[in-house]
This record gives sequence, C-alpha cells and structure tokens, in this order.
Amino acid sequence: MKHTDIRDIFRDPAPFLGQTVTVCGWVRTARDSKNIAFIEINDGTFLTNLQLVVDKEKLDESVYKDAMAVGTSVKAEGVLVASERNGCEVELTKLTVLGTCGADYPLQKKRHSLEFLRTIPHLRVRTRTFEAVFAVRDQLSHAVHNYFHKHGYRYVHAPIITGSDCEGAGEMFRVTTQPWNAAAESEEAYYAEDFFGKKAGLTVSAQLEGEMAAMGLGRIYTFGPTFRAEHSNTTRHAAEFWHIEPEVCFCDIDDIIEIAEDFIKSIIRDVMENCPEEMAFFDQWMEKGLLDKLTHTVESDFARVTYTEAVKLLRESGQDFKFPVEWGADLQTEHERYMTEEVFKRPLFVVDYPAEIKSFYMKQNPDGKTVAATDLLVPGIGEIIGCSEREADLGKLLEAMKKRGMSTEFYEEYLDTRRFGSVPHSGFGLGFDRMMMYLTGVQNIRDVLLFPRTVGNL
Amino acid sequence: MKHTDIRDIFRDPAPFLGQTVTVCGWVRTARDSKNIAFIEINDGTFLTNLQLVVDKEKLDESVYKDAMAVGTSVKAEGVLVASERNGCEVELTKLTVLGTCGADYPLQKKRHSLEFLRTIPHLRVRTRTFEAVFAVRDQLSHAVHNYFHKHGYRYVHAPIITGSDCEGAGEMFRVTTQPWNAAAESEEAYYAEDFFGKKAGLTVSAQLEGEMAAMGLGRIYTFGPTFRAEHSNTTRHAAEFWHIEPEVCFCDIDDIIEIAEDFIKSIIRDVMENCPEEMAFFDQWMEKGLLDKLTHTVESDFARVTYTEAVKLLRESGQDFKFPVEWGADLQTEHERYMTEEVFKRPLFVVDYPAEIKSFYMKQNPDGKTVAATDLLVPGIGEIIGCSEREADLGKLLEAMKKRGMSTEFYEEYLDTRRFGSVPHSGFGLGFDRMMMYLTGVQNIRDVLLFPRTVGNL
Repeated sequence: MKHTDIRDIFRDPAPFLGQTVTVCGWVRTARDSKNIAFIEINDGTFLTNLQLVVDKEKLDESVYKDAMAVGTSVKAEGVLVASERNGCEVELTKLTVLGTCGADYPLQKKRHSLEFLRTIPHLRVRTRTFEAVFAVRDQLSHAVHNYFHKHGYRYVHAPIITGSDCEGAGEMFRVTTQPWNAAAESEEAYYAEDFFGKKAGLTVSAQLEGEMAAMGLGRIYTFGPTFRAEHSNTTRHAAEFWHIEPEVCFCDIDDIIEIAEDFIKSIIRDVMENCPEEMAFFDQWMEKGLLDKLTHTVESDFARVTYTEAVKLLRESGQDFKFPVEWGADLQTEHERYMTEEVFKRPLFVVDYPAEIKSFYMKQNPDGKTVAATDLLVPGIGEIIGCSEREADLGKLLEAMKKRGMSTEFYEEYLDTRRFGSVPHSGFGLGFDRMMMYLTGVQNIRDVLLFPRTVGNL
Repeated sequence: MKHTDIRDIFRDPAPFLGQTVTVCGWVRTARDSKNIAFIEINDGTFLTNLQLVVDKEKLDESVYKDAMAVGTSVKAEGVLVASERNGCEVELTKLTVLGTCGADYPLQKKRHSLEFLRTIPHLRVRTRTFEAVFAVRDQLSHAVHNYFHKHGYRYVHAPIITGSDCEGAGEMFRVTTQPWNAAAESEEAYYAEDFFGKKAGLTVSAQLEGEMAAMGLGRIYTFGPTFRAEHSNTTRHAAEFWHIEPEVCFCDIDDIIEIAEDFIKSIIRDVMENCPEEMAFFDQWMEKGLLDKLTHTVESDFARVTYTEAVKLLRESGQDFKFPVEWGADLQTEHERYMTEEVFKRPLFVVDYPAEIKSFYMKQNPDGKTVAATDLLVPGIGEIIGCSEREADLGKLLEAMKKRGMSTEFYEEYLDTRRFGSVPHSGFGLGFDRMMMYLTGVQNIRDVLLFPRTVGNL
C-alpha cells in the first residue's frame, strides 16, 4: 500500500506542498460545518494529527460520511497545502475507509484519564499521550544501545530462566511445566520431574551472568526483562520491568562513577534532541518544568558525598523525617530526595555504604565497614542507579557470603571468575522504566509499559 | 584504571608506535625461550591477541613469572613496536599481575572441542571462538535495532509473562509463586491464590501484542526473549531464545515480503562490514565458504514460488524424500532445503500456504483454501522467517477461530483491533539465534547463546 508517513510530511512539508499525497491513519477527531468538514488523522508516526479538509461542494457525503466517526481507519488522497494550523493540511480528493468504528469505541474526542486508559492498554496506544510515551521509549532504548555500542560494549542476552538464585528468594517467580496439582512425594521428586530437572525461576538481575560474560569479553551490557514477585502495589513497582546492567573489566569505582554520569547525561540529551515534540508535550501536560529539570541535569557536574557524610548532614539538617537517620540504616526516599533536591540541588552520588546493608558481591573497602558501592540520586525520584565495584578477591568474597549465611553451591561458576584470572571490575544497574518516568514526568510505572504486569493484574 | 583497548591498537597502530602503552587482559598463551619470552594477552575487545615481548636481560624473572600461566590477568606497560606477527607487539617494561590462575584452569593452550566448552559456559567467553560469536551477536543485534529505527519502527517491549495463550498450549512454561506442594481444592482455587490471580505463562511469541501496539503506533518491532517448553533435544531448539517480530500497518503481503528481503540483506551486510575479522574466522574454522554463501545471499534477488507450485515441483523432482509431499501437508526441512539449494539456488519465499496448516490470524486468500502467508527459506537452513498478512476482517477472523475450536475469551482485546478501525497489516518473525547460526556457520544453537537453556539443562 503505497502511502507517505505523516511524520515525513510534517518534518519537511516543502517537497509535498502543492502535490497530491496519499496518507493512511486513524481518525482522531472530526468536525462538521456548513460547507466544509475537517477530519484529523494520525498514523502513529507523528504526534500531530494531519487535517483532511473536505469541501462539501466538491465531494459527495457518501465519500466521507463514515470517516466522521472517531477511530475509523482511512486511506486518503489529496493535495497538501499550507495552513495556519500545524503548517499544512490536505485538501481531500479521495477517501477509502479501511475499517469502520462503531459508537461503542471507548476512545472519544474528549481527554481520557490515565486511570481509564489503563483499563484499555490495547487501545491507549491510539492516544497522543501514549504515542508520545512509546516514541520516547523507543528513542531511549536506541540511545542506550548506541551509547554502549559506541563505547565498545558487547550487548549480551543474559538468561531469563535461572536456577542460580532460587534459594530463599521469596520475591522470585517460579517457572515450571508441572501441572498445578502435580503429586510428588517430596520437593526433590517434584523438581526431578520438572522441565529442567531442578527448581527454576525468573531472573531478578542479570548481574552475576553479566560479570561472568565481562570476565572474558571485557565490557558488556545487558538490556532485558527482569522480574520481581513483589506484592507491593505501588506506582513505582511492576512485576516485570526492563533493566540495563553494564559490567566493565579493568574498571574501579571511580571509573564506573564517571561512566554512569556520562551515560545518564548522554541518553537524556539524545532523547531531548530526537523527540522534541514529545518532550514539549510532556513538559506541557505531564510535568511542568520537565525540560528545565532535564537540562539542569545534563549541565550539572554530579555531586558526590560519602554515606557517612550524608548521615551526618541529614542528622544535622533539622528536617522532620518520617524515618530516623542512623549510620548503618539504609537511606529512605525522603532522605535521598532531600539531599539531591535541597542540599546539593543536582544529581548526587552517595558512596561507601555500610557493607551490611549492601550485597555480598561488592568490593570491601579498607576500613572494614563500608563497600565501594554508590547510588545515584536524582531530584524528583531519589535513587535511579545502583552501582559498585565488585569484590575481585576470592577470599574476601567467600567471607562475605559466609557472613550472610549463603551457600556457595549455586555460585561455583561465579566464583570461578575469581579463581582464574580475577580482575578489578565494576558495573551498575538502571531500571529502564524508572528512567522513563524520570524522562517523561509520568507518575505511574503502569503508564510507561505496554502491557504492565503487577500483582493481581495480567 | 587508565589503559588502552587492544582493539584500538590493532585497528590503527600508527599513533601508538614507538609510544608507551598500557594494556590489560588475560594471558591466552605464553612461550619461553632462552633470552626471550612471549606472552599473548586478550582483553575481549579484539579477536587477535597482543603479544608482550619479554627481554630477559632487562626484566627480572620475578616480574613476569606468574604471567607465564594461561588465564592469568595482567596489566602491562611497554613500547609498541612494529612486528611481522599481527603487525605490532609490545616490548614489555612493567607488568602487574591482577589475578593469578592455577593449573586447574580448564582452558589450556590447545584447542578445546565445542562439546567440552559447553560444560563451562562461564569460561568459554575467554576463547577466540566465543569472543567471535559474541562480537557477531552484538553487531547483529545492533544491525537489527538500527534497521528498524532508520525505517521509523517503534521498539516495543511486549510482555514476557502472559495470560493470553495458556489454554491448551502444552509447550508453554507456567509462571507461579505457589509453592511446589500448594494444596488447593480445585484448579480455580489454586490460581485464585497465585500472584496474578490467574494462570500465567511465559510468552511463546510477541505477535498478538505486537499487532495491538502497531494498530496505534503504525510500525513496531519487538526484540526480546520467547520460550518453548519443547522436550525435543536437538541442535536447533532452545527453551529460551530471542525473537524479532516486526508488525507493520497499511502493509500487505507483497509489501512485507519486500521488507523482509531488504531487512535480511541489510543485517547480513552490516555484520560482514563491521565484523571482518570474526567473519573471516568463521569462514576458516566453522563453515568453509561461509562468506561466499552470505555474499550470494545479499546479492541475489530472492525467488518466489507458491506453495501449490512448490508441491508440484517437489513431486515431479524424482527425489527420494524421507517425508512424502502432498498438497495440504507442511513442508519438511528436506523439502525446503532441496528447493532453495538445488532448484532455485538462492533464498526463496514460498507463498500462499494451505490455511489448515497455518495459524488462525493469517489473511484468508480469495481462493478459500490458502492464506497470505510465506516462509523464507535459505540454503543450509531451510525456513528462517515466517511471515504473513494478518486477517483484518473481524468476521473472517472469528470464523477461523471457530474452525479451530478456539474460545474467544482470551482474545477480546485482540479482536477489538478489528472491531475499531481495523487496517491491513503484516508482520514476520525471525528467530535471532537461528539467524546467528546462519551467519556464523555454528551448528548447535547452544553455541550461540551465553547460557543456553534446554530440556534438563539449566
């Protein structure tokens, strides 16, 4: 079906002006008046609708009547002319209805609430808001891949089904081919009969596999789905979300902090440059001041403070926090936001967290109490990146596992990387959907995902 | 840790020659002779090892002794000089062992079999073969994203956990948070207690969700993991594999065939241009004539034959096939390969398959017997792409579901896209790992995946 994308027309109308164009799309709105009718269509390629102008003296009603209904899909032909509204419009000469749309179509001309649209995820892609969301999502993905490719990282596909982290991970989904009522004499017998011959689950993080890949390929990143069977039904949690996890060999904590800062700035800049219409839309309708916030972020030198200094600063702040601040306790979102928004007024790396509140694989600092881990905090969100140098020393790693009561049974391959030519290496994790929220001002994670999966909701 | 990637040195040695360079890497091989020792290191960024030359008169044995063991990781400093071997090498002045490696290291100087390497997926990334595999895998992924981005497709993340296809899909993994021995009075009660409040599984294809997204966003593609709980333990099946599924609105079967051909040629060309060393390696060690095969593919006009003509042609071929050829039966790999390799001698689209052996969502042809579906067959593999125009007519779609005894219960959202402004649209699916095998000549799917998941193997 030969036709022109509406994006191509709007981005550079000059070559089309005065010419006959063929366009396709869905009717977003239609207005009828005495001698003239207006039909606005959208084909998904551009945020702005293209207006078809019907001269009722020239076209018989039978041609355009069905297309006056919102949701109808059409193929239209006409001459592109300059117009005050949006720069150009089409003087309709021919119209074919591809698919009609009844009055029971849930999307009408009026604005719909995000809550309502959440009930029709398969149709909300036909609204401006979600067209903008998925345009930015596409560009942000592209920016991520381009950044790492340009810097010599290998994109690896870490496994989704995993056996490695099944012990005691209450938040993990289990994967099985056993029927719901499988009868087994014991847990062992049950799993022996299962597809993989043992217990399997959905990955919660690709990091350990990413480390193993990096310890051969040098620099890698993963960008794939991860899963948490969290029962917390909040605006920030989804059971299935996309995760970016680079891992870099011959790289210490200072190097990876530099990389994380450069990465975040680069991908924000990329989206702002390549999605100007969508970002202006979000700035107007979703979060006033969004563009200023993002510009400030890309132009700031990110600040840096140790966890110990941060605790001091918070305790002396005189702020009335809901959660108390004490050395050894994790920082809460209210603390994070206070520091990045009120104290430093820019993105902030908090470094050297207490070992006890962080994971076993993080590099132990010489002080014996803290680890070379950092969280990147940004205004409006709090933590957006978790980052650390990894413990490269086999003895220290084993000791950290022992302290946490972890069995080495599921980690033998991982430990091999420290047995055989271990190297200093570091990495970070960025929740892609959280980044989408930060970039667009969208407040609910369900509104940046195509078909969101949350507890009780499939 | 400031150092230079070995790739940067090999790709353009000129600016480094005569200069002191710092490089990092793992020792791949080491040779000792009377006055001199050679240590070859690799940092994962380039297929060729960089040779460190030790002048024993200048360096004390204590400096380099530990680095003579394969697998040791080092940071090395020295002057880059021209060399017959690989163009350049480093005259070592300083060496730091980052991580030692014992004699129990499974990788030694000799070549290891792919079968053996399959038992150590976490270490095989340190071999030339797998460095080449993952370099090509990275470049192929990049080529896929670039192709679609350039052509205005939105990358969408279709859900991995799905409730839509659970009925009767015996090959589907189930996802649950119920314990293995959950006691429930009935299936209904069991799932009511489960995380999503109903039965959930891992997606086998993103197509239906992709169609729904496209019917608003215009052109989309998915590129993510899909799953089949197939018990067939072959060299071509994995339980978890990556899948590329574009979906294009306002696009008929002829348009999508044109797109599929252009896409396949583009991504092959991209990898050949950007991974010359790796592709030469595969041509030499994995499949003799690989580069000729691929060049032939990108330079061919793909052939086209109807299923009906193909059946006639196969029946009249006089070939002794294992499986009989009859109109209405699916083509087997032997038939596919015979046609693409012997008859047409180039990639071949077989179009208009019998409706009965294809899926419910494919557009019904006017003949009442066939559907607008095509498989792309390539020499050496057989089918590599499955492609079709989708049935846009609600009535015909419902009829096709009824014929197959399918309940519409799980498809109401999908059917909505035909109720409300349906449009002609088409798409195809390409198994990414199969494409990897075609591109590299690797014969076993386990050897193109980082941590392959197959029946009984996790």
